[in-house]
Amino acid sequence: MKIKKNYILAPGPTPVPPEVASAGAWPLIHHRTPQFCAIIKEVAQGLKMLFQTQHPVYFMASSGTGVMEAAVANLMSPGETMIVAQAGKFGERWGEIGKSFGCHLVEVKAEYGKAVQPTQVEEALKKNPSAKAVFTQLSETSTGCVFDIEAFGKVVAKTDALLVVDGISGVGAEPCFPDKWEVDCLLTGSQKGVMLPPGLGFISISPKAWKAVDASKSPRFYFDLRAYKKALDSDDSPYTPAISLLFQLKEALKIIQNETMEGMWARHSWLAKATRAAIKALNLELFAERPGNILTAVKVPSGVDGEKAVKVMRDDLGVTIAGGQGSMKGKVMRIAHLGYMDRFDITTAISALEIAFKRQGFPIKLGAGVAAAEDILWQDPQ
Amino acid sequence: MKIKKNYILAPGPTPVPPEVASAGAWPLIHHRTPQFCAIIKEVAQGLKMLFQTQHPVYFMASSGTGVMEAAVANLMSPGETMIVAQAGKFGERWGEIGKSFGCHLVEVKAEYGKAVQPTQVEEALKKNPSAKAVFTQLSETSTGCVFDIEAFGKVVAKTDALLVVDGISGVGAEPCFPDKWEVDCLLTGSQKGVMLPPGLGFISISPKAWKAVDASKSPRFYFDLRAYKKALDSDDSPYTPAISLLFQLKEALKIIQNETMEGMWARHSWLAKATRAAIKALNLELFAERPGNILTAVKVPSGVDGEKAVKVMRDDLGVTIAGGQGSMKGKVMRIAHLGYMDRFDITTAISALEIAFKRQGFPIKLGAGVAAAEDILWQDPQ
Repeated sequence: MKIKKNYILAPGPTPVPPEVASAGAWPLIHHRTPQFCAIIKEVAQGLKMLFQTQHPVYFMASSGTGVMEAAVANLMSPGETMIVAQAGKFGERWGEIGKSFGCHLVEVKAEYGKAVQPTQVEEALKKNPSAKAVFTQLSETSTGCVFDIEAFGKVVAKTDALLVVDGISGVGAEPCFPDKWEVDCLLTGSQKGVMLPPGLGFISISPKAWKAVDASKSPRFYFDLRAYKKALDSDDSPYTPAISLLFQLKEALKIIQNETMEGMWARHSWLAKATRAAIKALNLELFAERPGNILTAVKVPSGVDGEKAVKVMRDDLGVTIAGGQGSMKGKVMRIAHLGYMDRFDITTAISALEIAFKRQGFPIKLGAGVAAAEDILWQDPQ
Repeated sequence: MKIKKNYILAPGPTPVPPEVASAGAWPLIHHRTPQFCAIIKEVAQGLKMLFQTQHPVYFMASSGTGVMEAAVANLMSPGETMIVAQAGKFGERWGEIGKSFGCHLVEVKAEYGKAVQPTQVEEALKKNPSAKAVFTQLSETSTGCVFDIEAFGKVVAKTDALLVVDGISGVGAEPCFPDKWEVDCLLTGSQKGVMLPPGLGFISISPKAWKAVDASKSPRFYFDLRAYKKALDSDDSPYTPAISLLFQLKEALKIIQNETMEGMWARHSWLAKATRAAIKALNLELFAERPGNILTAVKVPSGVDGEKAVKVMRDDLGVTIAGGQGSMKGKVMRIAHLGYMDRFDITTAISALEIAFKRQGFPIKLGAGVAAAEDILWQDPQ
């Protein structure tokens, strides 16, 4: 068969809706014009809805790692203590960035796949009363585990420390209420729940955290949030913005507004439930202790070469999921149900997984996973 | 008339060719795949042609200012001396970034519109023998003046200092030979001569400068070039790249390869010549002492409100050029002939300028500028 369609079910980049994709080809307009300022005003409003915050959300041309650096460089000064509540690769990244900026690092760890407990964070704050901030993840993309940010918020709010949450894979898929939960800094990237290509980062800062921004002694220029604040106050951006990605953001936010945030979370939760039912029906094991709406990490069963299965799915079957990262390489396979996804994305992913495992001689009943997913996908009132 | 087309003749963003624009709407593929590595390999090769260098050119999701920060953060350590050879807003930006990173700043200035002389740089190096690097512009976008980078290279190469050139508006339009001219670091952005939307920055580093990268004590993570080098060595990128912009880059580089760099420079030079002939035919004055191929800055004549003329051109006539920046506000108008431009872009810009000036009662003979441009555009053997 010469025609093979490609399906992307990785936790970023995620599929882009056609209305959003085509906006990436719109003729550019100049960014220092009233016409473009009107677009900035519109997306700034939409980003508050996406972030569920009353505070401004700043956007910048960068990957998610760039806005993580923005959080560290703006909130921390060299020598200050950062607590990192981590259980995966992206938690470790907080520490790497912190070390690059001369911060003193206190790691609060759980095993890959587990959730860091709020009591662990509480204890670390007691032991380190001068800690400036707690850095963590809403969803640890490398394991699919979701942390209890609401509980973290309760613990951190009792202290002077700030709570900084990487919502890169979480925002849009997993409910998160930064103002209510007392999250001081929330950030995300464009290529996840927001349904855009990669290249934009977003970050919100609470009034409590702004004091730290003003006081920070870390060297910074491109990521200096004071410049973004000053510009956004007049519907502008400090440096040439990624105009075509902002056109796309405008279209994506319209889709999100139409679905509503509650609708987004419910759809993600429902697709996640169907995926997990399929995995269980195939007698496979889930990896994450507290799996979220973002992705389902499956333990690679004995008798299957996990890396090979991911490659076969991608190169032979046209279905891109993600393997394990770092120490999880070959041990997990991650199926994302993130962003622009509907029922048939899930049955496609499960069908491809069944075929790939069968090709390795793993005992699988073709269709058993798909049937279990369909049971949920078509009987659910969604 | 209800239909009004928009023409963009500002020095960034510049118009995007349709083949490049439509690639911005292509379905995404995952970035950690052999399929995407092949694209990185292809663009990495094309970027060497664009930069006219044998050394690798790194790309990152950021504005031009981001790669300027990458140059400072990777080459300088706090307390070290940077010489900034400047005569405009973007020269000043080098100093602002340097100060943010704790560098000791030595400014070598010329007035806005003038070119910094190589002898000034030579003198500054003699007075500051411990200077780590000279930072300057190939083309100062705020004035349209081009600096003699070849001569700067001769002066700097006699010392231990590095030569760092912001080629953001220059690369692609103005000949620049970093290897031959002993430029240690050259950088540009995507929304200029490269004919892409904004959102990508590019930077090359000479072997001499790599020693400084390895030795730099400036805090950096997202812009740390060591991570980009390690990744690019295996056709990869350290963080999620701006996939859709890289699809577009691949298409733009094909167009550039087809035109050839010599063809690009010749076209830009020829469009610049026609624009200047038009300005002179309208009895207007050029602003830059050493105008380049990028843009033509026109002095706003007495009796004309320059800011208003730019607004009328944009909002009433659909032709976006640029006004003056900073202290040049209202004093100059900048017509770019940069990127995806041909003959009729020039006559459109000149025609719109004639109309806008006439509407302010300025004595102008309609068509006189266009005629002078046509004389060059159609009699030239191009």
